[in-house]
Amino acid sequence: RTSLVRQSGCAQLTFYLTFSVAFLVPYRHMFGPGPSNVPLRILEAGANPVIGHMHPEIFKIMSDIKSGIQYMFQTQNNMTLAVSGTGHSAMECAIFNAVEPGESVLTAVNGIWGERAAEMTERIGARVNTIVTPPGGFFTNAEIEQALSKHRPVLFFLAHGESSTGVLHPLEGIGQLCHKYNCLFLVDSVASCGGTPLYMDQLEIDILYTGSQKVLNAPPGTAPISFSERACQKILNRRTKPVSFFLDLSWLANYWGCDGKLSRVYHHTGPVTAFYSLRESLAVLVEEGLQNSWERHQEVAEYFHAGLESMGLKLFVKPKEARLPTVTTIVAPHGYDWKEITAYIMKTHNLEISGGLGPSVGLVLRVGLMGCNSSKANVDMVLAALKDALKHCHKSKV
Amino acid sequence: RTSLVRQSGCAQLTFYLTFSVAFLVPYRHMFGPGPSNVPLRILEAGANPVIGHMHPEIFKIMSDIKSGIQYMFQTQNNMTLAVSGTGHSAMECAIFNAVEPGESVLTAVNGIWGERAAEMTERIGARVNTIVTPPGGFFTNAEIEQALSKHRPVLFFLAHGESSTGVLHPLEGIGQLCHKYNCLFLVDSVASCGGTPLYMDQLEIDILYTGSQKVLNAPPGTAPISFSERACQKILNRRTKPVSFFLDLSWLANYWGCDGKLSRVYHHTGPVTAFYSLRESLAVLVEEGLQNSWERHQEVAEYFHAGLESMGLKLFVKPKEARLPTVTTIVAPHGYDWKEITAYIMKTHNLEISGGLGPSVGLVLRVGLMGCNSSKANVDMVLAALKDALKHCHKSKV
Repeated sequence: RTSLVRQSGCAQLTFYLTFSVAFLVPYRHMFGPGPSNVPLRILEAGANPVIGHMHPEIFKIMSDIKSGIQYMFQTQNNMTLAVSGTGHSAMECAIFNAVEPGESVLTAVNGIWGERAAEMTERIGARVNTIVTPPGGFFTNAEIEQALSKHRPVLFFLAHGESSTGVLHPLEGIGQLCHKYNCLFLVDSVASCGGTPLYMDQLEIDILYTGSQKVLNAPPGTAPISFSERACQKILNRRTKPVSFFLDLSWLANYWGCDGKLSRVYHHTGPVTAFYSLRESLAVLVEEGLQNSWERHQEVAEYFHAGLESMGLKLFVKPKEARLPTVTTIVAPHGYDWKEITAYIMKTHNLEISGGLGPSVGLVLRVGLMGCNSSKANVDMVLAALKDALKHCHKSKV
Repeated sequence: RTSLVRQSGCAQLTFYLTFSVAFLVPYRHMFGPGPSNVPLRILEAGANPVIGHMHPEIFKIMSDIKSGIQYMFQTQNNMTLAVSGTGHSAMECAIFNAVEPGESVLTAVNGIWGERAAEMTERIGARVNTIVTPPGGFFTNAEIEQALSKHRPVLFFLAHGESSTGVLHPLEGIGQLCHKYNCLFLVDSVASCGGTPLYMDQLEIDILYTGSQKVLNAPPGTAPISFSERACQKILNRRTKPVSFFLDLSWLANYWGCDGKLSRVYHHTGPVTAFYSLRESLAVLVEEGLQNSWERHQEVAEYFHAGLESMGLKLFVKPKEARLPTVTTIVAPHGYDWKEITAYIMKTHNLEISGGLGPSVGLVLRVGLMGCNSSKANVDMVLAALKDALKHCHKSKV
């Protein structure tokens, strides 16, 4: 063995020792806001042999994925595919394609996702306006209409499942409002899709995306996305090219067989093993049935929320109907350091729950029970861990 | 089971049947220009349980990956990490961060990669100049200096391993030339790194990236990248933010522990299982030793090239020293339809070789023997398959 990195003998030895030991990954209860646990059958699907990113078998798998996403999103959109990246890639894919420099965009900010959508939009030189509520809040249709009417955006961004605050945003009527003002409706459902009713077509959502690592229980790395005919029309009639070649919908549409062309041109090397896992995770959803999955998540969430309240803990989101069934936010227990609680539960119970994110930092604890993790047995485990933590962590005399 | 997608009963049945059958992925000899075959230990590494993208164990794995990339790239750059995407993401990461709108960029076009780099650069509003040779050619340092002097670019793009044409571009002295003209040197080594000598620091390369699915034999989906101090200085002093939040180096640097800050802030959900595979693939490289890997690829390539010539086939790249040892381009055999040859070999030998790409379409056959695929036994297999194809495919009477 010859090392060619010029460094001291000692550093070199450390380097070789690092790689001479196989790394160990612990099994952990992944009950934070994601990634969630991945069942063995999905992990194993991803360990199938690598074949070419343009082989017929992969095109068949991609076609299955497309059908599965159409089912999960409740859409008949032809322009339905998975981005070769995580949720943030899908968010950029939506904004990069739907918006041109100088155009006006409206984002609803009631947590971190609206902030990030606004930042992405600014970076490509569009004009951003926001409507803002404190974490835990949401918007009425009247507030949204007022902003649409005032700012006349080409795109309105809203997070359906605001995982940083635990808010499930009502969607009824908003798509129709957007279209009244000739605006596209972009919805982030990374933390909600599959775990709560969501009808893309019926709600007149123009662009919808989610992640692989939440309700779908696949590893992070792919992000389902779908575009309405109205969105496609705007995108196909752009005056400028999207800033990213990698995320350019016209190229992705060809790779995913959505553009009606007979032959597919090499765009990028699709992450084929991640496609295997994603397809398997959609198969799991189809087997259970979407309606059953929605009902299970709701039932488990209500059981969880009742358990929390009976312990004397408070839910961060007050209106029951605005509580995300996949990610629950608990008011950070008074007198405790939330970091000590999450660290104690990780150390003692091998279980991840997390603190807030962005605007909700310090305000909440977050527990995600998504996909296969959404069960009453897991709720019992989390409640026991929380009780144990509140007993053993330091409490100030307040 | 309740289907909610409104479609005919027959389409619905087809949908359920699709997902009721496990998909089958054949084992195939992946001897095209990538992805290459992935050894079982690397596939299995990727099937480890998912943990959090900010857990200490992942930070340790990411730190190992950083060390492994430094070794593979022969660099001491602190700003060394893996992009959560394929090679094209790394290409965009380099260009998006290093270039601001209106700046001048020079790209060397001797195949598809220079074309794509030029396209990416144009999309972000930079001015692009190119130097161009026909496929199979490369540039002298004098030609490069002339262009640097004329166009005064802030960045010069060059593909080290031009996988569409089979050219291994000489790199000696080019970094120094770039720096003479106050220009950053960006090198694409997706198809070459690990299979042929490449000393990032010694060659004064400012930004270098590769892919996971070539010599490293990991699944596609991550892309090692490294930035010199000089590149970091330009990037940290930008006047504008890079167009992509997802690929913004200041965020990536923090996630990868390269910015010297004690705490890491949530940026995106890293593809943890792809990180497991990437780490394992770097461990394989460390075990063999980089020098040994370089020598093996060279020896196998020479054995392959001799075998091709003894069959009467012609190598597309004439100068021996400019032949990429990882991807060999063969002049498309006269009188044959190249598509029939590749299809015959796939069907009869379960073996992928490919035709040209971009400017080399129709001109060449391409055979990639990368990482674990680079062996004399595999060369013998490819030669036998080629002989068989030339015997059985249609030949016009010319």
